[in-house]
Amino acid sequence: MPVTTANLETNRSEFKQYLKKMKSYEEAVGLIYWDMRTGAPKKGIAQRSEVVGELSGELFKMSVSERMGSFLDYFTDPQIDSQLDATERKIVSECKKEYDRSKKIPPEKYQEYVVLTSQSESAWEDAKHNADFASFQPYLEKIVAMNLEFIDLWGYEGHKYNTLLDMYEPGMTVEKLDQVFGALREKAVPLLAAIEASSHKPDTSLLKQQFDIAKQKKFSLYILEQMGYDFEAGRLDETVHPFATGLNPGDVRITTRYLPDDVNSALFGTIHEGGHALYEQNISADLIGTPLCTGTSMGIHESQSRFWENMIGRSRPFWSRYFGDLQRNYPGQFDGATVEQFYRATNEVKPSLIRIEADELTYNLHIMVRYEIEKALFSGAVKVADLPEVWNEKYKEYLGVTPSHNGEGVLQDVHWSGGAFGYFPSYALGNMYAAQFMRTIKRELGDFDGLVAAGNLIPIKNWLADKIYRYGKLLTPSEIVTQVTGEELNPDYLMAYLTDKYADIYKL
Amino acid sequence: MPVTTANLETNRSEFKQYLKKMKSYEEAVGLIYWDMRTGAPKKGIAQRSEVVGELSGELFKMSVSERMGSFLDYFTDPQIDSQLDATERKIVSECKKEYDRSKKIPPEKYQEYVVLTSQSESAWEDAKHNADFASFQPYLEKIVAMNLEFIDLWGYEGHKYNTLLDMYEPGMTVEKLDQVFGALREKAVPLLAAIEASSHKPDTSLLKQQFDIAKQKKFSLYILEQMGYDFEAGRLDETVHPFATGLNPGDVRITTRYLPDDVNSALFGTIHEGGHALYEQNISADLIGTPLCTGTSMGIHESQSRFWENMIGRSRPFWSRYFGDLQRNYPGQFDGATVEQFYRATNEVKPSLIRIEADELTYNLHIMVRYEIEKALFSGAVKVADLPEVWNEKYKEYLGVTPSHNGEGVLQDVHWSGGAFGYFPSYALGNMYAAQFMRTIKRELGDFDGLVAAGNLIPIKNWLADKIYRYGKLLTPSEIVTQVTGEELNPDYLMAYLTDKYADIYKL
Repeated sequence: MPVTTANLETNRSEFKQYLKKMKSYEEAVGLIYWDMRTGAPKKGIAQRSEVVGELSGELFKMSVSERMGSFLDYFTDPQIDSQLDATERKIVSECKKEYDRSKKIPPEKYQEYVVLTSQSESAWEDAKHNADFASFQPYLEKIVAMNLEFIDLWGYEGHKYNTLLDMYEPGMTVEKLDQVFGALREKAVPLLAAIEASSHKPDTSLLKQQFDIAKQKKFSLYILEQMGYDFEAGRLDETVHPFATGLNPGDVRITTRYLPDDVNSALFGTIHEGGHALYEQNISADLIGTPLCTGTSMGIHESQSRFWENMIGRSRPFWSRYFGDLQRNYPGQFDGATVEQFYRATNEVKPSLIRIEADELTYNLHIMVRYEIEKALFSGAVKVADLPEVWNEKYKEYLGVTPSHNGEGVLQDVHWSGGAFGYFPSYALGNMYAAQFMRTIKRELGDFDGLVAAGNLIPIKNWLADKIYRYGKLLTPSEIVTQVTGEELNPDYLMAYLTDKYADIYKL
Repeated sequence: MPVTTANLETNRSEFKQYLKKMKSYEEAVGLIYWDMRTGAPKKGIAQRSEVVGELSGELFKMSVSERMGSFLDYFTDPQIDSQLDATERKIVSECKKEYDRSKKIPPEKYQEYVVLTSQSESAWEDAKHNADFASFQPYLEKIVAMNLEFIDLWGYEGHKYNTLLDMYEPGMTVEKLDQVFGALREKAVPLLAAIEASSHKPDTSLLKQQFDIAKQKKFSLYILEQMGYDFEAGRLDETVHPFATGLNPGDVRITTRYLPDDVNSALFGTIHEGGHALYEQNISADLIGTPLCTGTSMGIHESQSRFWENMIGRSRPFWSRYFGDLQRNYPGQFDGATVEQFYRATNEVKPSLIRIEADELTYNLHIMVRYEIEKALFSGAVKVADLPEVWNEKYKEYLGVTPSHNGEGVLQDVHWSGGAFGYFPSYALGNMYAAQFMRTIKRELGDFDGLVAAGNLIPIKNWLADKIYRYGKLLTPSEIVTQVTGEELNPDYLMAYLTDKYADIYKL
């Protein structure tokens, strides 16, 4: 179509319709995945996968279609671009980014990669189960090799790994991560050593009881409601691997898993997913039906789950308010225990082998191990074949522990089997962003601890919604952080927070 | 494409892919509807409706596309047709039937009708609530008028209403229905009179208690399992208006509604939907992904829900086996009651105003009222404006009762507001088919009552699966009935069954 302003309104409206259609397909696929993971009958799964294949295939086609190409040509023309508002311009640039990425991969290569990662995920499951790295190695080698090919096709600046990082955290680079992780590590390692040397260890015995599942569920729902999670725009279900999914801002679902012998697992898991959900529930209605109607990055998303889980949920003010409710929820089970005992038990620091079981401090070290390894894989400094050895060395170095087999070592996470390199740093970035946001909230909301201690969490949710959630993907992670906190990502806030917290608990 | 046999294999495979894609869209929409009706958060519904609109629109486009047209031209060419097997030929004729129907309506007419029925459904809700027929009348007039236009476009043989009947019960006509309903009515009306005159009325007081919802659910699940409902290919959820939905044969979901003061509502509702579900779960795997992978008609489908609900579930042998379980399920609530008392209470016949609350006998009379009215509307013998009066006259005539207002009279059912004329007869046809099938089962399986009394329901399910379910839509209703029972639909079996049953209960 010729570039004239005469048909700007028509093109605007057609592009909007086109994007709405894409979002509709995405939403349908999202619902199918939610259903698959919360109780879809197993005999229907094979056929349901065909449905997912059809709809995802259509969605991919729309994202790289000639029609999309001509929309992008039209809207990126300087004459037209100058007439767009900020939201429209961001929508165009998001679509263009995805279009360019996808177009640079030959379709047969992409197809090969889809098949490879799908086979690889099931190979990984078996390998993990049998602690047998050798059976997984050829898949991982091929996945790394294909990612290197893709990076060459996509292009890169500086480190090749930057191109992968950018997929999950737009604008993030090895240079920045080296700096922030370096700073983090410098303080985290001695802090961990001091904690381990402390003789004031928390007594965790009061957590080691049996807890009725129905009561756990009731308490999880209660805390979600306290957080301001909107049950008319979401629901809580059970699953094996908990997740939150934002189908649209009016339908953001959380899942959790109840362990009969662990009162904290489902509770903190629910708060964590609840944090993700608050983000998605509070995206501005203007962005519905556009590609901006989602969190801006994995790191910012994770900052919200961790902010609610850790900075609020594992804080002393929180338990000063809610421990009484917890006691009443489990009659007789916490009789005679104090808030302080529960708070300390809930914040035990202990280097361990498994990332997903790690405390707030050591979690970051688990991530750094993965980051170092991914960086080395994509610079060529480390080969896939060497991963088990490198993994174990790094765990010894960072955490002082050694896996007894690869199942609890290099094979523990699903990410690499699906080709998700560049994803892990988001988790630690989330912790850093969260601490940085908290510093600002404390400044702007005044008595933050007092609000939490009073169970007055809604002003906190509203502040986050106003400063972060409502923008969806309209702002980049870096724009969000600087706009909210007045500076770029700064790892010092996380270390200051952790140092204060544990100095107090472990009397350092 | 030129009609040659050289590319038959290619065309076969492309057509199969095309149909699979259509089925995938249908399955996605089916899942979204299930979700909307079982707990989707209400604030997400508006956006979810957009998703349904996109996917349904795509599905409709595929069903009338040029591509579909050229597939149909190709496969209906005698030279190609002769090389198709029976299943393929049936698939082609099903697609052609839908294609021709849709193509004959100008798209703007169709769009107008979609908007009209959607507005009309919400107008009906208000009208029913306010018992205000006048506010609904203009919608209904327009819907009838447009259906008459459509009938002219589609064409008809004999009565115009035949074209509508054929949509739900392929091959059904006014001529046949007049005959079977006439025969039914001839015996049903005097039977009802005899029952009303009987002094041996069941005592229903034992049903008038409070029943714990969790226990009701447990018993519903137990009975479903006894019926051979496959829980790995389905699940039971709660909803306001119960339904069964076959997403694919490996995922056939049932919903029910538990009333605290009614032990029978959820139980028989579950058995009813369970009957529909057994049909869909047992369709042959060969038909998955084709338009034949569903029940052959509403009437045959309803025959299965009613067979399980009434012929098995409301039978004396069934309760001789399961009443003990029911007593144990509700400790203390049926102490001292006998199987016979429960059986009689469960089979009370009572003319009433509301179809969905009707017993096995009067249900058919409710349907005949609607059938007479629909027939008269489409012959022009009755005007929409006269419906309340006609309705009340017919209820007096057939059932001896008169609504106190239109909300419990002519406005009680949703069907007409959505334009579903021709649907109601399916319910009574289902009762007739069910009785006719039972006659054959009794002959072929030997001691049918003995199997039921022993709780040995699986051979019955297997027989139905083998004779009916596995064919899906491969055979027409008439082919199914004649193949299974050796004769065309015959209303005498239903009347013989009802006469025997109630003569015994009411000692006629």
